[in-house]
Amino acid sequence: MPLLPKSIQNLINQLSKLPGIGPKTASRLTFFLLKQPEMERQSFSKAVGGLGADIRYCSVCHNMTETDPCKICSDIKRDKNIICVLEDPLDVVAMDQLADFRGVYHVLGGAISPLEGIGPENLKITELLNRISTDQTPKEIILATNPSLEGEATAMYIAKQIKIQNSKFKNIKITRIGRGLPMGADLEYADEYTLSKALEGRREY
Amino acid sequence: MPLLPKSIQNLINQLSKLPGIGPKTASRLTFFLLKQPEMERQSFSKAVGGLGADIRYCSVCHNMTETDPCKICSDIKRDKNIICVLEDPLDVVAMDQLADFRGVYHVLGGAISPLEGIGPENLKITELLNRISTDQTPKEIILATNPSLEGEATAMYIAKQIKIQNSKFKNIKITRIGRGLPMGADLEYADEYTLSKALEGRREY
Repeated sequence: MPLLPKSIQNLINQLSKLPGIGPKTASRLTFFLLKQPEMERQSFSKAVGGLGADIRYCSVCHNMTETDPCKICSDIKRDKNIICVLEDPLDVVAMDQLADFRGVYHVLGGAISPLEGIGPENLKITELLNRISTDQTPKEIILATNPSLEGEATAMYIAKQIKIQNSKFKNIKITRIGRGLPMGADLEYADEYTLSKALEGRREY
Repeated sequence: MPLLPKSIQNLINQLSKLPGIGPKTASRLTFFLLKQPEMERQSFSKAVGGLGADIRYCSVCHNMTETDPCKICSDIKRDKNIICVLEDPLDVVAMDQLADFRGVYHVLGGAISPLEGIGPENLKITELLNRISTDQTPKEIILATNPSLEGEATAMYIAKQIKIQNSKFKNIKITRIGRGLPMGADLEYADEYTLSKALEGRREY
């Protein structure tokens, strides 16, 4: 679109680079921003430019944080006996909305994915093993990586690593989050894998 | 999400203000940006901050431009005898992708919309009337406002204004783009073929 002024074209190009945003959406967003007050655009600009400047990683759970250790790890009300292992900081946000869970977290920073060149050494797995051996050993580790191929593989790998060092950690209970039909789902539309997992994970009433 | 560092939360909030982007998409985009190189984020930030700084309006056609008169109005290869009247700068971009049209444009800056408080006096209609009376009078005016209620009303209003001053402009042919475009559609999102057909099927008012 060489007919548009450079600053407009420039922002359309930048927005088009974002995942799920094509050139039409990018134009729409750009013209929306153009109608906003200058101050609004400047604070948006600052938010983009300042992104990441204040981010540290908690030396205990490896979650993103502003303070080290993070708010959750330094919270004395949290039950340090239960560690929930997650892939990403956003998973912590999702999990922590539950009033049910008052344990602590361990953020891996992704999942094992040979296709993307992410091996166990790129994740905070060694850190997890060190954490449970040096800290007061927890009672339970909940493996809550995503129920995707990568997440399943990662959970299996971690469980195996912990069991290899069985003598050291023999009292730790290792669990995997329940997989099955999501609430509100329709059985007839469920995929085979989910259904199989739901059957496998059935519990006595 | 008070668990995330401020700079992340800040950008999520800003992105959530954009139309069609909810908090989930905003988080996804923020984490995508977080993985980009710092330089990439800075140029995005600059693109947002610099938006609008270079925008002038062409004194002839009132399109957004960096130079006055704009590239199209100062192009000697353009046929000044045909003026295509459009609502918005993005409509010019859409229309100008057609090889069919080599005339010039007139950008109204919107359409008459009593609900939004936009009357004829808020649009560049007087400027259009002045333009066709002071410039060499064009042979044809194509009213290509959107085929929406507002666009139709605007086209009708302009046609009427020109006909009122009939004696002065009696040789001007006033046409409306063909209603091959479905009612309620938005010109800037029309595919090229529909747009081309609409141009071809224009009828005298």
